Amino acid sequence: MIGHVLCFGEVLLRFATPAARLTVQCDALDMVVGGAEANVGAGLASLGHGVRMLTRLPSSTLGDKARAVLGAAGVDTLHIGRTAGRMGLYFLESGAGLRPSSITYDRAGSVFANSAPDDFNFASALEGARLLHLSGITPALGPGGVALARAAVAAANAAGVPICFDGNYRALLWDAWDSDPRSILTDLMQSATVMIGNHRDISLLLGKPFSGDASDRRREAALAAFEAFPKLQLIASTARHVVNAGHHRIAARIDTRDAAHQTAEVDVTGIVDRIGTGDAFAAGVLHKWLQGADTVSTAQAGLAYTVLKHTQPGDMCLIGPAELEAFSASGGDVRR
Amino acid sequence: MIGHVLCFGEVLLRFATPAARLTVQCDALDMVVGGAEANVGAGLASLGHGVRMLTRLPSSTLGDKARAVLGAAGVDTLHIGRTAGRMGLYFLESGAGLRPSSITYDRAGSVFANSAPDDFNFASALEGARLLHLSGITPALGPGGVALARAAVAAANAAGVPICFDGNYRALLWDAWDSDPRSILTDLMQSATVMIGNHRDISLLLGKPFSGDASDRRREAALAAFEAFPKLQLIASTARHVVNAGHHRIAARIDTRDAAHQTAEVDVTGIVDRIGTGDAFAAGVLHKWLQGADTVSTAQAGLAYTVLKHTQPGDMCLIGPAELEAFSASGGDVRR
Amino acid sequence: MIGHVLCFGEVLLRFATPAARLTVQCDALDMVVGGAEANVGAGLASLGHGVRMLTRLPSSTLGDKARAVLGAAGVDTLHIGRTAGRMGLYFLESGAGLRPSSITYDRAGSVFANSAPDDFNFASALEGARLLHLSGITPALGPGGVALARAAVAAANAAGVPICFDGNYRALLWDAWDSDPRSILTDLMQSATVMIGNHRDISLLLGKPFSGDASDRRREAALAAFEAFPKLQLIASTARHVVNAGHHRIAARIDTRDAAHQTAEVDVTGIVDRIGTGDAFAAGVLHKWLQGADTVSTAQAGLAYTVLKHTQPGDMCLIGPAELEAFSASGGDVRR
Amino acid sequence: MIGHVLCFGEVLLRFATPAARLTVQCDALDMVVGGAEANVGAGLASLGHGVRMLTRLPSSTLGDKARAVLGAAGVDTLHIGRTAGRMGLYFLESGAGLRPSSITYDRAGSVFANSAPDDFNFASALEGARLLHLSGITPALGPGGVALARAAVAAANAAGVPICFDGNYRALLWDAWDSDPRSILTDLMQSATVMIGNHRDISLLLGKPFSGDASDRRREAALAAFEAFPKLQLIASTARHVVNAGHHRIAARIDTRDAAHQTAEVDVTGIVDRIGTGDAFAAGVLHKWLQGADTVSTAQAGLAYTVLKHTQPGDMCLIGPAELEAFSASGGDVRR
Amino acid sequence: MIGHVLCFGEVLLRFATPAARLTVQCDALDMVVGGAEANVGAGLASLGHGVRMLTRLPSSTLGDKARAVLGAAGVDTLHIGRTAGRMGLYFLESGAGLRPSSITYDRAGSVFANSAPDDFNFASALEGARLLHLSGITPALGPGGVALARAAVAAANAAGVPICFDGNYRALLWDAWDSDPRSILTDLMQSATVMIGNHRDISLLLGKPFSGDASDRRREAALAAFEAFPKLQLIASTARHVVNAGHHRIAARIDTRDAAHQTAEVDVTGIVDRIGTGDAFAAGVLHKWLQGADTVSTAQAGLAYTVLKHTQPGDMCLIGPAELEAFSASGGDVRR
Amino acid sequence: MIGHVLCFGEVLLRFATPAARLTVQCDALDMVVGGAEANVGAGLASLGHGVRMLTRLPSSTLGDKARAVLGAAGVDTLHIGRTAGRMGLYFLESGAGLRPSSITYDRAGSVFANSAPDDFNFASALEGARLLHLSGITPALGPGGVALARAAVAAANAAGVPICFDGNYRALLWDAWDSDPRSILTDLMQSATVMIGNHRDISLLLGKPFSGDASDRRREAALAAFEAFPKLQLIASTARHVVNAGHHRIAARIDTRDAAHQTAEVDVTGIVDRIGTGDAFAAGVLHKWLQGADTVSTAQAGLAYTVLKHTQPGDMCLIGPAELEAFSASGGDVRR
Repeated sequence: MIGHVLCFGEVLLRFATPAARLTVQCDALDMVVGGAEANVGAGLASLGHGVRMLTRLPSSTLGDKARAVLGAAGVDTLHIGRTAGRMGLYFLESGAGLRPSSITYDRAGSVFANSAPDDFNFASALEGARLLHLSGITPALGPGGVALARAAVAAANAAGVPICFDGNYRALLWDAWDSDPRSILTDLMQSATVMIGNHRDISLLLGKPFSGDASDRRREAALAAFEAFPKLQLIASTARHVVNAGHHRIAARIDTRDAAHQTAEVDVTGIVDRIGTGDAFAAGVLHKWLQGADTVSTAQAGLAYTVLKHTQPGDMCLIGPAELEAFSASGGDVRR
Repeated sequence: MIGHVLCFGEVLLRFATPAARLTVQCDALDMVVGGAEANVGAGLASLGHGVRMLTRLPSSTLGDKARAVLGAAGVDTLHIGRTAGRMGLYFLESGAGLRPSSITYDRAGSVFANSAPDDFNFASALEGARLLHLSGITPALGPGGVALARAAVAAANAAGVPICFDGNYRALLWDAWDSDPRSILTDLMQSATVMIGNHRDISLLLGKPFSGDASDRRREAALAAFEAFPKLQLIASTARHVVNAGHHRIAARIDTRDAAHQTAEVDVTGIVDRIGTGDAFAAGVLHKWLQGADTVSTAQAGLAYTVLKHTQPGDMCLIGPAELEAFSASGGDVRR
Repeated sequence: MIGHVLCFGEVLLRFATPAARLTVQCDALDMVVGGAEANVGAGLASLGHGVRMLTRLPSSTLGDKARAVLGAAGVDTLHIGRTAGRMGLYFLESGAGLRPSSITYDRAGSVFANSAPDDFNFASALEGARLLHLSGITPALGPGGVALARAAVAAANAAGVPICFDGNYRALLWDAWDSDPRSILTDLMQSATVMIGNHRDISLLLGKPFSGDASDRRREAALAAFEAFPKLQLIASTARHVVNAGHHRIAARIDTRDAAHQTAEVDVTGIVDRIGTGDAFAAGVLHKWLQGADTVSTAQAGLAYTVLKHTQPGDMCLIGPAELEAFSASGGDVRR
Repeated sequence: MIGHVLCFGEVLLRFATPAARLTVQCDALDMVVGGAEANVGAGLASLGHGVRMLTRLPSSTLGDKARAVLGAAGVDTLHIGRTAGRMGLYFLESGAGLRPSSITYDRAGSVFANSAPDDFNFASALEGARLLHLSGITPALGPGGVALARAAVAAANAAGVPICFDGNYRALLWDAWDSDPRSILTDLMQSATVMIGNHRDISLLLGKPFSGDASDRRREAALAAFEAFPKLQLIASTARHVVNAGHHRIAARIDTRDAAHQTAEVDVTGIVDRIGTGDAFAAGVLHKWLQGADTVSTAQAGLAYTVLKHTQPGDMCLIGPAELEAFSASGGDVRR
Repeated sequence: MIGHVLCFGEVLLRFATPAARLTVQCDALDMVVGGAEANVGAGLASLGHGVRMLTRLPSSTLGDKARAVLGAAGVDTLHIGRTAGRMGLYFLESGAGLRPSSITYDRAGSVFANSAPDDFNFASALEGARLLHLSGITPALGPGGVALARAAVAAANAAGVPICFDGNYRALLWDAWDSDPRSILTDLMQSATVMIGNHRDISLLLGKPFSGDASDRRREAALAAFEAFPKLQLIASTARHVVNAGHHRIAARIDTRDAAHQTAEVDVTGIVDRIGTGDAFAAGVLHKWLQGADTVSTAQAGLAYTVLKHTQPGDMCLIGPAELEAFSASGGDVRR
Repeated sequence: MIGHVLCFGEVLLRFATPAARLTVQCDALDMVVGGAEANVGAGLASLGHGVRMLTRLPSSTLGDKARAVLGAAGVDTLHIGRTAGRMGLYFLESGAGLRPSSITYDRAGSVFANSAPDDFNFASALEGARLLHLSGITPALGPGGVALARAAVAAANAAGVPICFDGNYRALLWDAWDSDPRSILTDLMQSATVMIGNHRDISLLLGKPFSGDASDRRREAALAAFEAFPKLQLIASTARHVVNAGHHRIAARIDTRDAAHQTAEVDVTGIVDRIGTGDAFAAGVLHKWLQGADTVSTAQAGLAYTVLKHTQPGDMCLIGPAELEAFSASGGDVRR
């Protein structure tokens, strides 16, 4: 495989209540495969890019399922290690209207979380890669996760492969151990060329607030990040306003060192599945970045892909490039 | 069981078309257990209160199902009588958009409707109770139903247990026999401490209209009711505006002898199941009333619980106190 | 059968992804029977009219399914021929929100498309008929389809049975062969008493644009059509604005030689299935036309039936006359 | 319709637990349409005969469903009356292995059971009929049912239409009122040309036991029946041995005044649905009787059709003549 | 609650593939609640006994589900503790024919497994109890589990409540830590009045083999157990021969100090769910033991209840006493 | 990819009725991906071998589904061409008991069937391959199919890659055109190293019958094939006896030039899906052949894998090597 994107991170199984049911009302739960980095990989593969997943899965039927779903999405799974242990799980109680969905994690002690850097052959997986994608979830898993993220970043640096880092700040995970997220994440960001994250993420990294009105605040934060992280070339973020579980409003923004573009806000109604929409945004952005596109079309693609993800069940966006190009924020009738 | 709420009334099975299908389009119907008083009981049990159901069910597999659903909801079912006979049924054709749902009842001749006061041990069931909850559906079933409602009320009065009475006026039932609903209901209301019903219910009870603008009319009606019913301490009602089958607007109101509070109207979109939302309102109100809360928080809790019910399938609201407390009329994103 | 409507055209099987899934996410597809003319027939039968279907189906289990669905809808199926061959199919990927549904046809070479006029006994099927309904899809299938449509029209003319012609312009079908749709359709329209189609359809038939604001343009086009087609008495059309896959806005319009009526626009939200809504409009219009109603109530019935179709899955509207009469554009609560 | 079989009797809705579940384990029940006489009609229609159903259904969505299912099966439903009232229901808890299925009836007070002879136009429905099929269930419903059965038989006699009578002895129904089944059934049997029933049914009719070994006993009973019922030409019966809920052994037998044939016993394993298999046997027998076939092929067809019914869910056998002809008691591999 | 059976042990959630699918073929898994002791409790409650569950569940939606299922089964859940933590899970890949089902456990670190004796109020839960039921799974969980089992046994001894102990030997659990199952189990068995287990379990407890033919061997082992365990009064066991995943052969055996009875072997075909059949056997046996029945009817009831469990999905047998009494090993036709 | 098996042939979509339903009883059909050669590939990939599929699929959502299912099975899909056109389909009506399943093909005019040799890059796909697998279905598709099969064989010969040829004689396909199957297949067999086929296939190829008892006949045929086809080293076949749709008996046989082994017959009951079991046999045989195993273990693996396939839905056997090794013809209880 040549010219691929390498995604490194944990793959999870999601068990979700169907049709807005409470868990107590269900005799079956929908089973879906996800994980922030895998979702980005599946999106990029669906958009036609070569994608390889680097992770470890249990040698169980659940691990088989996770591998199969990645293979179905067109992701290269030959570098996925298998070993005895448990699968990281999460349970989703689907909301509706003014009842938000809620997630219960059961991911501690998973095969991935218990892995050491030596369990992965980063060099081999990175051979020929155009990009390494990883996220802030891996270091949040604990000291072992920090070691994994650092090893991945070091290997990419050694191989001269640029890095996309998605902040994905999960307070629950960082708070579960004696962590210093700011110093860990700031260190990892030194190697990042692309950052997925907004002014609040930057504020957390740099330890200072950004004031002013919405748009000024965002540019100010972006410029501070470009100053702090010398390799950084592109920052991609969304602004989301939640009306109810079935109706959000979203705008997308791209900042480079020289330019910035923020799209108009789109009304996202009839939401089918909100999970993974941030990862779809990252995939839409990277899809254009890998093609060398400008900030406007990159922001538009990120927006379109995240909006489209809301219309499709599952953690992974499996929508193809034709649908992405045909996207219109003013709707459209049945296509025949 | 000490300090419980005793719910007395008929338990019904609902057979409903799934997914907005017409009945002719279905090869299976969803089966749900309900009944106005049982719904209130299930809601209160889900909110953490001790609840006992007093009813009679057929000694059939359908009766078993009804008992199991109440047990699952945490309701004490040891006082439910079982005997040969039929289960009260109703059939729901689920609507969508501008096609309202429609209900066909098939409840005549059920085990409960054919019961006599002697078939129930009210005294034993009321032992230690904090409240008796019943509704206007029981007396509407016919002369036998009137006798049942009167016996329940008499037993509660004898035991010194306060009564919550939900008007639940069903013209179809009252019109099916030579009834005088006004005198029957007015008589029962003499014993009520809490009333679930709005100015139209009061107008029907007192036989006079209330004029003026919406808010004045409601307070005027409440004061008239407090005058007419000496034990009455609290009147709880909702104002509902139907936009379409998936979008209603609702406000809640609490009147006491001294005070009144009406909440702002909430937009309820993405409605999953409208049935039982009135009973959920009653449960939310009683939840706070049992805690001695003020009118504002009582009205808010009633509103929140009825709005949450719209987001969950089934007749019974099974949502817990944490979700009720977290309710926000301005929505919220996925909770992790 | 006396006084029936005869529907002539192809019956198709639709395979659709359920619940807004992509095809790659499905292990089963919903199977529905449709076809423009059959949909109109099923609607009219549901509204209480005698309806006979004239078509040919494969002598396979798929053909059996199509016949059974028509029989379930109350359509007379005794004149449906059966022969070896394939069933016309189409595949629907259900959209949601800002992702429109998309259709892939696989209907080439079907039993119907391969039929010749001699394969049908038009005279026998038309005996006692009040109306022949056909659409522009049949001639669009190719030279054989043109021959079928012409034979049907000739037989109706010979039997003195008036004709309703629904333009149903499908560019994909016409573009697939060396066709001259304008001359073919103009010729067929010479025999039509009722036309389902808007100013764009008329523009295409007459080869000239209509200018001015929306309402003027529509009347101008209607008058031009009445001039061009001497038998034509009624033109029925809708104006649809797509907000997103779950929210359209629709108005209905009826033009006669003497009068015109255009309804107010209705907000159609919570859309369950948009396919077949045009055919439901035709059924609603013909329902009133067969009763000799005026333009206002004809337009209202067409609007109501098409709006109701959006709330029900499947290609065919199976809603009865009581529901049609009860329709209100301002919504309504559960009917008990 | 000319040369049709007229089926007269009640149509029921069945609600059944899927997949061997207990009722308490289900949140949905499968909905199926049946009724002994309707099942025979659906079988004959599936085998290519003209069939008309004469019954009354409620003017509700459940009545619509029943009519639609009959129409889907190819049965003429134009003579079905509709009126306000309830649908006859039954509830099936599906068994498996050594747990037999069990049925709870809820059919009392249905529209059909409450009908009077004047509610039916027997003469019109019988016009051109080749056969009237009815069963012992109608008179078992009560004095009103007896009147209905007698009126149907009288009308057939008046129209010179032969009668097939299926004993279908249901002790539960006869025991529910002060009935004399023997005299009622014996009277009806005076008009029967075809009887579906075995030596136990004859024993009950004639009030005497038949001794000897199995085959002798059956012939002896048949001869006694032929003597008692002067119009009777053919008696059809099955002998069924239940191994468990998924495995029965069945033989079929035909007796005429001159001849008798009993088939070899067939092992029926992998039973999908046992309900309606007796009606499928009647349909298979009548299919051949209407063709004037001999006792051997009539017995074989009855056997084949009842065995095939066991392999298909639902009360009605919808299998066509090609499958019936291809039946082999020694199995067969996938047909391509 | 007076005269109840107290069941003490862990409650698990099972996620299972439906319809003989592999996990990789599933997009949803069936969710069922089980656990050896809870299964016995649900069976006894279904058979009409008062049953209380003593366990701890996570304060999550999964814990809510487990509580609801126990309540639906009629089990008293008021003594169930709730705390933060994870739910014990297991995953079942359903077999068919010659592919056995396989189970993957994911129960380590559950709320129950992490509990200490002080987390339970044994004395309160045992008040008025007729029996304490526990199994060898609890001590197999680790040193903490041993402490829990010992505390339960000590509390029952102190309260004078007899104990039923089900060996339920799970090598996988015992092998996972530095355990000495023989000394732990032998110690617990000193307090047992009823033992569920066969000669192989006794062999393991006593550390010696039993020779001779099947029946002699079983009696010899029973006598040795009665000698070793002074309080022991009844030993109940099954002998199971697996033909394939859908066909087993089972006999039941009861040994007392004075007598023994072994039933004939029953062919169990059409197996729907084999999990929990051992627990159903224990429930059937205890059902009779609590009634003071003799060895023959106790063995028959144990056999019948375990065989019936095979015909019903889920871990828990929810079949009632009427069905148990009606059980026949020679099958039976539909019950009407 | 190095050391892979290259599978060349058409990939089909199967639409099947679930749960023994007739097509007229279904509102949804199960969608499964198959095709003889793809099934062998999926089996080999599930058993741990590198497998690449060479085929052409439509650039439609159905083509996406087919690709995704192959990717999920672990098959390399990078050499699959995509182009406009239709997908080959087949429709399965699932049988049960004595009603066999039946298949209706709708594969004419598919993208694959319309392909020319130049549409494939055989040389590139074969690079590093250990085996080319193809079947008699490709040449049966018509003169174009013959050209495709010949081109594949020529390319394998040129690359020095051995060939496995599965006869898969489908009379329906060969009879649909002016074909000479014997000369075409005999020509292709000249290049085959492994043949999947029995004495009847050999008889057809060599144009002569083989007499004697079953075992002699099979060896005689094998020796004749070895003489006729100089490269042939191994012949693998099954003998299947159909008891009913849920119960077959199967033995496997391997012939080499020097040795032969035929396994004992296994009773295959509780059949879940019989389609693809021949392809699973081929996969089991090739799994061992690729490992250089002897005739006995090759025959056992072929038998085990085909028997296991009967227990799993879908065309493709997705069972792994551990399950294959653990297979026992005498059954086994739940594995924990």
